[in-house]
Amino acid sequence: MKIENIMEQTLLYDFYGELLTDHQKRIYEDVVFNDLSLTEVAEQEGISRQGVHDMIRRCDKALHGYEEKLGLVAKFQKTRQLVAEIRRLAGECRCSGDSSALTEIEHIAAEIESL
Amino acid sequence: MKIENIMEQTLLYDFYGELLTDHQKRIYEDVVFNDLSLTEVAEQEGISRQGVHDMIRRCDKALHGYEEKLGLVAKFQKTRQLVAEIRRLAGECRCSGDSSALTEIEHIAAEIESL
Repeated sequence: MKIENIMEQTLLYDFYGELLTDHQKRIYEDVVFNDLSLTEVAEQEGISRQGVHDMIRRCDKALHGYEEKLGLVAKFQKTRQLVAEIRRLAGECRCSGDSSALTEIEHIAAEIESL
Repeated sequence: MKIENIMEQTLLYDFYGELLTDHQKRIYEDVVFNDLSLTEVAEQEGISRQGVHDMIRRCDKALHGYEEKLGLVAKFQKTRQLVAEIRRLAGECRCSGDSSALTEIEHIAAEIESL
């Protein structure tokens, strides 16, 4: 599994995981985050290895579907990126005493408010 | 309908409305946002007045259910409130030249990043 995939799955699951059933959540967490093998989870849940595999795919599809419809992960990511920029500018301004960064902070804050 | 209710419905619908079906969205928008009467919508949709009423209640319940599970409206509201405070502080600092606000901005930014 590529690291970007894991990061994407983590983010999507953080935001929308609660919309999965408890059964789906348990299996998804065991396979994706706790790194259990499909065979281990299949034995533990009393279903086939293929059944576990299909469920992970269905969960991934559902989580992506929520993001396609709601776009809240993207909105939050954008917000965090802008807030990090505000923090950087405030630190810069505090050290250099150059207050032009303040106007920029105000603009970025307004941009976040309009997201 | 009380104004707080309308505001809450608007926010919840903004965030989670896309998880309703097209049919539900149309009826919900007509009644809640376009201010059509239950009778008007019932005629337009070819269902009973009671059916429209029940659907609005079901939609409200679904939207509240999403927020109970995901809490993303609350998270966004909190973020916006903190960003407004950053904007206020930046403006204050720009006018007064008092740079102590900058440390506060950095703290608030860090708080948002940890939400």
